[in-house]
Amino acid sequence: MRIRSDTGPPWSGTNGTPLSAVGEFGLIARLRAVIEGAQDASRGGVALAIGDDAAVLAPSPGMETVLTCDIQVEGRHFRREWITPRMLGRRSVTVNASDVGAMGGIPRWMLVSLGLGPDVAVEDVEEIYRGMLETLSSLDDGRIIGGNVTSVEKGLMIDITMIGEVERGRAVRRDGARPGDLIWVTGQPGLAAAGLAILQGHTARGAGDRALAAARTAYLAPTGRAREGRALGASGVVTAMIDVSDGLAGDLRHLVEPGPERTRASEIDIVIDEASLPRSADLIAAAEAIGRSALQCILAASDDYELIFAAPEDASGRVRAVLDSCACPHQVIGRVLVASGGEPSVHIRLNSGELRHLVGEGWDHFA
Amino acid sequence: MRIRSDTGPPWSGTNGTPLSAVGEFGLIARLRAVIEGAQDASRGGVALAIGDDAAVLAPSPGMETVLTCDIQVEGRHFRREWITPRMLGRRSVTVNASDVGAMGGIPRWMLVSLGLGPDVAVEDVEEIYRGMLETLSSLDDGRIIGGNVTSVEKGLMIDITMIGEVERGRAVRRDGARPGDLIWVTGQPGLAAAGLAILQGHTARGAGDRALAAARTAYLAPTGRAREGRALGASGVVTAMIDVSDGLAGDLRHLVEPGPERTRASEIDIVIDEASLPRSADLIAAAEAIGRSALQCILAASDDYELIFAAPEDASGRVRAVLDSCACPHQVIGRVLVASGGEPSVHIRLNSGELRHLVGEGWDHFA
Repeated sequence: MRIRSDTGPPWSGTNGTPLSAVGEFGLIARLRAVIEGAQDASRGGVALAIGDDAAVLAPSPGMETVLTCDIQVEGRHFRREWITPRMLGRRSVTVNASDVGAMGGIPRWMLVSLGLGPDVAVEDVEEIYRGMLETLSSLDDGRIIGGNVTSVEKGLMIDITMIGEVERGRAVRRDGARPGDLIWVTGQPGLAAAGLAILQGHTARGAGDRALAAARTAYLAPTGRAREGRALGASGVVTAMIDVSDGLAGDLRHLVEPGPERTRASEIDIVIDEASLPRSADLIAAAEAIGRSALQCILAASDDYELIFAAPEDASGRVRAVLDSCACPHQVIGRVLVASGGEPSVHIRLNSGELRHLVGEGWDHFA
Repeated sequence: MRIRSDTGPPWSGTNGTPLSAVGEFGLIARLRAVIEGAQDASRGGVALAIGDDAAVLAPSPGMETVLTCDIQVEGRHFRREWITPRMLGRRSVTVNASDVGAMGGIPRWMLVSLGLGPDVAVEDVEEIYRGMLETLSSLDDGRIIGGNVTSVEKGLMIDITMIGEVERGRAVRRDGARPGDLIWVTGQPGLAAAGLAILQGHTARGAGDRALAAARTAYLAPTGRAREGRALGASGVVTAMIDVSDGLAGDLRHLVEPGPERTRASEIDIVIDEASLPRSADLIAAAEAIGRSALQCILAASDDYELIFAAPEDASGRVRAVLDSCACPHQVIGRVLVASGGEPSVHIRLNSGELRHLVGEGWDHFA
């Protein structure tokens, strides 16, 4: 269970213990104490954890290993005035677990690479670890098995490698959707995009506004759907799945792109319906506050860490049962079609009846 | 085989193609082309490589998974005027493979996380990847299976997660040395420390000096002993092993520290002999150029990526045979003793006959 109500203390920064006062090995010893207070590192498939040249894992029989890494960089993904160190730790785990869950895998083990500027305090790093461990413990007993710390001139970055497991041959890929499948989405895509814009100051409305707070939370403390992704994968009814980290339009495009399982002969198009897109009161209010439409927020680049997936129409009852059992909001938003020729494409049917080609507008870190 | 003679072109920087001109997805496409031109990603235990939410590996039967990560940060570990992008790519693989080899494992798969400032060109990133792939291909067909790229305000950083394999229960740990074992070292520890000092300008001697060039190379283009570590591990005669990334004194200390396999009753001391330490002509000349003794360089913090290991005395013939077959220089430098009481310790017997307590002087990133 994630403890959302306790965001932990704010940054100690230069008021805390400087890293230079404890040194690299002192910091590692303090982080080990935080980790070992929260988890038993000798269990859970870990043959050898923190303290040697490398960690050693015993893969479970019949399982394949799922690996992903994602980096959070200050100034790019967060600012310290937006987020407490504990929340940052939680977020860094959530975004990585999301990728493992979107493969139908179980996130199990984690390596943490930290780059720490001179104004990060020892207490701040401990708080980041507490946040990581809280979110990890909510994920089927995940554990930190190693990592490294280094100093950087300025700022703060966290690079996490998440290692999970999935039954052999059962990873849910991006390229498995088939004509006739329905396209589903969980939660409220787009709310994180609105939240990020609000955090960046693109509104004059007060911080006390409930919808704005919900949008900020969607960006800073995404729920994450690792458990739901795993449950959908284990159900065997999902043909393709991806997490929303580039925005709905960008990530739908990834589902029609060619992949090792998709020959030209099996190319698909996707058509989604404007009318079927989830549109919460919070999204509508937050979008209005930043001068966009809810639809713009939903389609554009957004780090929601919700799931988009495809499943055959006759499996809809099972899909609903899986997601209801996780108390996870979900919605059918479109359908997979035989490719109409030309490049595989994603279209949206607007409420006006017009069909528009949806050009992928994913998050681009260098644009 | 590493191609040391070709260091590749220098940095393109602002003369090259800016990342903003190709965007995140354009950059990823170009890097995929470099990777797929060099390796067949569908082989080598890779069930699913670049292009999905996460990579999927099929662990080999009977093997455990070895994992490590290490970050190279501009300004901290390298400066662009010291090293070409191709050399940087090679180095980033070598330092990570070293940790897997020091466990007796085979480095097999790699995730790459890049943080790229605005003055890094697309061509520079491609060169980094070429360097990584060159070194990987020399390591029993290792491959890049995924990663991520992000922009940073300034500078360049490469975080690599290296994944390897080792036979179940056969990982060579730090804490397995037993009284009576001999302590061995490969290559010339300390030369990288001298090289770093030379790079930082701590000498007035010319760049044409052969010994100085050798020292710089030891730091910038370490040989790496992943193959040797694996061969020693597979031979079954090594009781403990570590790679030298904190300097000889610092890493010897790690061998006497308590670990899961070492109870208080099995505590050890290590005594090394000054007279037995390897001392090449290059080290002596490079140390002199920076105003230190060769012994100071050998003991102090140094990123040599050589191996220190322990083995029973009666296994010495097999140890020599393994390392000779790898054409790897090696030397017995000391011995493991029953702990004399108090804290486990490392001593050095000086040529004067005096026994000195060796206080760990490892590399500390925050001191």
